Amino acid sequence: MMYFNKRSLLVVIIILIVSFSHAQLVQFSEPASTNINQNQCPCIMPDNSVVFKIKAPNARKIQIDLGKKYDMEKGADDVWTVRTEPIEPGFHYYFLLIDDVPVADPASQSFFGTGKMTSGIDIPDKDLDFYSIKDVPHGAMSSRYYYSNVTENWRRLYVYTPPGYDQNSEQKYPVVYLQHGGGEDETGWVRQGKTDLILDNLIAESKAKPMIVVIANGNVRSGMGGYSSQGMTSFTNEMIHNIIPFVDGNYRTLADVKNRAICGLSMGGGQSFYVGLENPDVFSAVGIFSSGIFGGIRNPSGSTFDAEKEIPGLLTRSDEFNQKLALFYISCGEADMRIEHTKRAVETMKESGLKVEFNSFPGDHEWQVWRKSFHDFASRVFQ
Amino acid sequence: MMYFNKRSLLVVIIILIVSFSHAQLVQFSEPASTNINQNQCPCIMPDNSVVFKIKAPNARKIQIDLGKKYDMEKGADDVWTVRTEPIEPGFHYYFLLIDDVPVADPASQSFFGTGKMTSGIDIPDKDLDFYSIKDVPHGAMSSRYYYSNVTENWRRLYVYTPPGYDQNSEQKYPVVYLQHGGGEDETGWVRQGKTDLILDNLIAESKAKPMIVVIANGNVRSGMGGYSSQGMTSFTNEMIHNIIPFVDGNYRTLADVKNRAICGLSMGGGQSFYVGLENPDVFSAVGIFSSGIFGGIRNPSGSTFDAEKEIPGLLTRSDEFNQKLALFYISCGEADMRIEHTKRAVETMKESGLKVEFNSFPGDHEWQVWRKSFHDFASRVFQ
Repeated sequence: MMYFNKRSLLVVIIILIVSFSHAQLVQFSEPASTNINQNQCPCIMPDNSVVFKIKAPNARKIQIDLGKKYDMEKGADDVWTVRTEPIEPGFHYYFLLIDDVPVADPASQSFFGTGKMTSGIDIPDKDLDFYSIKDVPHGAMSSRYYYSNVTENWRRLYVYTPPGYDQNSEQKYPVVYLQHGGGEDETGWVRQGKTDLILDNLIAESKAKPMIVVIANGNVRSGMGGYSSQGMTSFTNEMIHNIIPFVDGNYRTLADVKNRAICGLSMGGGQSFYVGLENPDVFSAVGIFSSGIFGGIRNPSGSTFDAEKEIPGLLTRSDEFNQKLALFYISCGEADMRIEHTKRAVETMKESGLKVEFNSFPGDHEWQVWRKSFHDFASRVFQ
Repeated sequence: MMYFNKRSLLVVIIILIVSFSHAQLVQFSEPASTNINQNQCPCIMPDNSVVFKIKAPNARKIQIDLGKKYDMEKGADDVWTVRTEPIEPGFHYYFLLIDDVPVADPASQSFFGTGKMTSGIDIPDKDLDFYSIKDVPHGAMSSRYYYSNVTENWRRLYVYTPPGYDQNSEQKYPVVYLQHGGGEDETGWVRQGKTDLILDNLIAESKAKPMIVVIANGNVRSGMGGYSSQGMTSFTNEMIHNIIPFVDGNYRTLADVKNRAICGLSMGGGQSFYVGLENPDVFSAVGIFSSGIFGGIRNPSGSTFDAEKEIPGLLTRSDEFNQKLALFYISCGEADMRIEHTKRAVETMKESGLKVEFNSFPGDHEWQVWRKSFHDFASRVFQ
């Protein structure tokens, strides 16, 4: 009798705990903004841990791969669940591993990143709203086709035009060319980067000039070959001889060097470094976010980066570059393995007299750093 | 000795067959246009069968679900492969089933359809190029945010502006409002539908008037409630009081009934039927592609559709509708379960004196039928 009472009590306690856990999930979590339609999960808990769920009666093993892998556990209803550790605010790629096969989570929006369709989750940053949609005038993000005589096919690029572009039909605007990273394409800055919202908000607060932003596909055939001036030839041709003429021919641009900037993240930062600094009569502002060109990727302890060798005159004739460049901006995530080499390269360049504006942000090699970098760059350029 | 020779011969023959099969695959197949980057597979064979591949050492069962399910077979290299039967030309949603879990194939682009992120494969139609990219002037497809006081949040819509829109800054254009189907969103007509290419090509051949096309999200809260006039209230409010004023306020539209049309596929066809016919002072052209409103979905043998009950006067005062409607267009796939009921409804309407332009296309409830339907509609509207 006593035994049964104890056992009953235990059952009641377990039921209460389970019920409370479930109630807590429902009450305190919020669905991620990256969820498909009205899916409740992935859901973000108050401590920024995330609960993932998927129904899979016949799988043997399911994990969430957010860089770190989390084992999911199968419940009686065939729904597998896991609650992760707290996740850093910002946008993260993740995979679902079903019996070790990496796929996108059907509960979340998919993004092109890491060379595949992958899932994304965006953890709100409670202290930041510079990329939130607000009650301000909004620009337009347009997709356009142009013919490339480098790749010999039609390619797509996106063009952000600021609020009022259609109404102020006489006004001309400066242009930033904004490049994605390796394993990404022209959708990266549009979707993961939230370029349009960043600029809508900056312009509404008069913290950035109204500007056009062009987001092209940087995967130009035979131009992927590493971080060197030679490897950039195809991309340089594409940018100088195809993309810029298309944009200047189809938009009301201020089509001079003073009003033309280039910046990008990671691979796109490398492209911006070479194309921007080798063509100071085309671009007067260059931004490099989290690039591996300075070293720190494969060989964390040493760097063979030599600014003078890559861009002759950059150190020895820094005055000339200072005169031509209105803005030379470099940034990196503070937890990125590229940070130390980047800082060292910036120091060397500064010691030679080159004007460099450097900034770093919390985080690793990730979109939250790049959103902040572009936000920072856009508020400094064309001023 | 004899035995060994025979056996050796057999081995040689098998090697030859396998080599030839592989060579044949490589030589005669082409990667699908919907593949991610440079993936070779999914690859389309000359007979329109498709070879799918995925590496999965630890899965027990993998299938391709293209409506019909195909079992994949695991090779010695842990790569699972299947060659399907010949597939109908056009765009098809498909899933990868990994141990029965439906997910998108990481080798293909993902699309929002069936209420999830799903894979798509586009089988070229050798006889058709109306949605191919050609050397013609191209318009722009822009994403825009507008505030909805129906759903009380910011929503996204796409706006196609025809070639020359930016240059001809005095010209005004007619507008088509184009709606997606159930389980889809505003990306459907942009990505699966190839609306921009269809219009670029039609306009280049002078087969359609230069026009603006607006592609909004038809999933308006509490407006999903079935195919009835009542269920359409939220969508009607959204369209009449939010979407149209936003478009007329931000684009150079011919903002009168004569130059405003609405059409859509499936659920969007039902929305077009009610919103269009109930508001003949707003829209003068209505197009309904593959809609279930006429019956044939859940109850293939019978239909309770009564045109007069749904739109009072449609049969009894058909003259009034004929005067107001410049175009009332209905289409359906010939293999769609909705076709017979649609034809019967069209007959009834025609018998009452209502002018209806009806067309059908080979195919089931699928995007190839909808691309052809919009192509057909766009070439008839505003003429």
